[in-house]
Amino acid sequence: METTSRQNENLSLNTAIVRKILTDFVRDETRNAGFQKGLIGLSGGVDSAVVAFLTAEALGKENTLGVFMPYRTSNPQSGEDAELVATSLGIRTERVDISPMVDPYLSREEGMDRIRAGNIMARQRMIVLYDISARDRSLVIGTSNKTELLLGYGTLFGDMVCAINPLGDLYKSQVWQLAETLGIPASIIRKKPSADLWEGQTDEGEFGFTYASVDYLLYLMIDERRTDVELRAAGFEDTFIAKVRSMVMNSQFKRRPPIIAKISHRTVNVDFRYARDWGI
Amino acid sequence: METTSRQNENLSLNTAIVRKILTDFVRDETRNAGFQKGLIGLSGGVDSAVVAFLTAEALGKENTLGVFMPYRTSNPQSGEDAELVATSLGIRTERVDISPMVDPYLSREEGMDRIRAGNIMARQRMIVLYDISARDRSLVIGTSNKTELLLGYGTLFGDMVCAINPLGDLYKSQVWQLAETLGIPASIIRKKPSADLWEGQTDEGEFGFTYASVDYLLYLMIDERRTDVELRAAGFEDTFIAKVRSMVMNSQFKRRPPIIAKISHRTVNVDFRYARDWGI
Repeated sequence: METTSRQNENLSLNTAIVRKILTDFVRDETRNAGFQKGLIGLSGGVDSAVVAFLTAEALGKENTLGVFMPYRTSNPQSGEDAELVATSLGIRTERVDISPMVDPYLSREEGMDRIRAGNIMARQRMIVLYDISARDRSLVIGTSNKTELLLGYGTLFGDMVCAINPLGDLYKSQVWQLAETLGIPASIIRKKPSADLWEGQTDEGEFGFTYASVDYLLYLMIDERRTDVELRAAGFEDTFIAKVRSMVMNSQFKRRPPIIAKISHRTVNVDFRYARDWGI
Repeated sequence: METTSRQNENLSLNTAIVRKILTDFVRDETRNAGFQKGLIGLSGGVDSAVVAFLTAEALGKENTLGVFMPYRTSNPQSGEDAELVATSLGIRTERVDISPMVDPYLSREEGMDRIRAGNIMARQRMIVLYDISARDRSLVIGTSNKTELLLGYGTLFGDMVCAINPLGDLYKSQVWQLAETLGIPASIIRKKPSADLWEGQTDEGEFGFTYASVDYLLYLMIDERRTDVELRAAGFEDTFIAKVRSMVMNSQFKRRPPIIAKISHRTVNVDFRYARDWGI
């Protein structure tokens, strides 16, 4: 597929403007919610590095906490990378080993596969982040990018949840572009994206396709609303188009609130669904 | 406040119709999501008893699992009540003690208040329910009622989450009415509602008002969209109106998805927000 040049055109960001929009977003939405501080689950990857950068710029280093939450089988490199990010930004960090919370349930459920185990780890991290949020009066700033959100590549009520998310409308390729201009350490930008839930796991290995190709396909399919005929004309194979469309559709439940049976005239999230800052 | 008779009129349900609507809802939405089975976190209270009943009626007893998840300080009566519900419905049950998952983090964070501890327990229960959901290919059926949802009386990413929720549009007073007609054991219907997160906790004790009064106020305020002048004319005090309105507004964040910074033409949950069963 010869899509590289077109990808760069279509997905290319004006990084100076995006940086300003996202920094303003983090500052405004945090204060709007009544908070002065933010916390980020630092994985050692590029997404959380960019969010930590934006939060430090928006709220100040002293008001930004990076929380690193390894499981005992996590790659030690992840911790070094998280430390590198925190040091380069000058933000505060906290380390919480989730193994003591994860292991009792894992040992109860014998023969659990790694997907289930990975979801439990992601949700234990959510518990830690939300508890620190309550302890410190600090807002959980999310790190899911648009590629992950659209493909459903994340754990519901785990890494997919947050109060505000500055990256959710940027494809992974765009997060990389932004990272380059923010001074994120090159080793963090260049490493292969991985959820680090088991040894050797990489996002692209699990997908069976690259971020470069899926980002361009998603851009055409979702943002440009192109038909299948147009997608084929753009060089994408039928099986790839069908696979990605089915990933997007099958993960819609992860992006929407629970379904409530309608009985009354005003039902939560049906007729009663103001914005979060309703009334302010 | 002399509102009892009017409460009964306005909040009175045609329980036969509601039972039919909710049973159909559970059956249709479960199958629509591609599942044949449902699971419910059984607390021993009336809400989860009603949901277990509806699920058993919709999907069959053999396809309904009640999961009881005590913490070591939970009231032993809760377990007996959960057992009573399961026995009277003839559904399968499973018991998972969450103490081994909760305690390691509690002992790490000294001086944690009971609100934080309660949120951790509610979220550990979510982890168990969602893991069993994956293990059994079974859908998590929610138990939050409309009173709890509107007041924000629940844990975000804890007891407030589920795939489908048959009770979310019924006030607590209406859940009680429905329970009476379903043959839920009288002791379950008559017990004081409690999250059982600490000894002696009751919902109404924490609120500082009764379900009877707040349900009628919420009905007038939300369903009927009455003005403050009308609410005062209906017999409600200014301080009560103001307290309840602020509870509803301040908990809006628990009912809505995270806020994503808008960069593109189509942003998740802004311009891209199909229903969960989009495309089917």
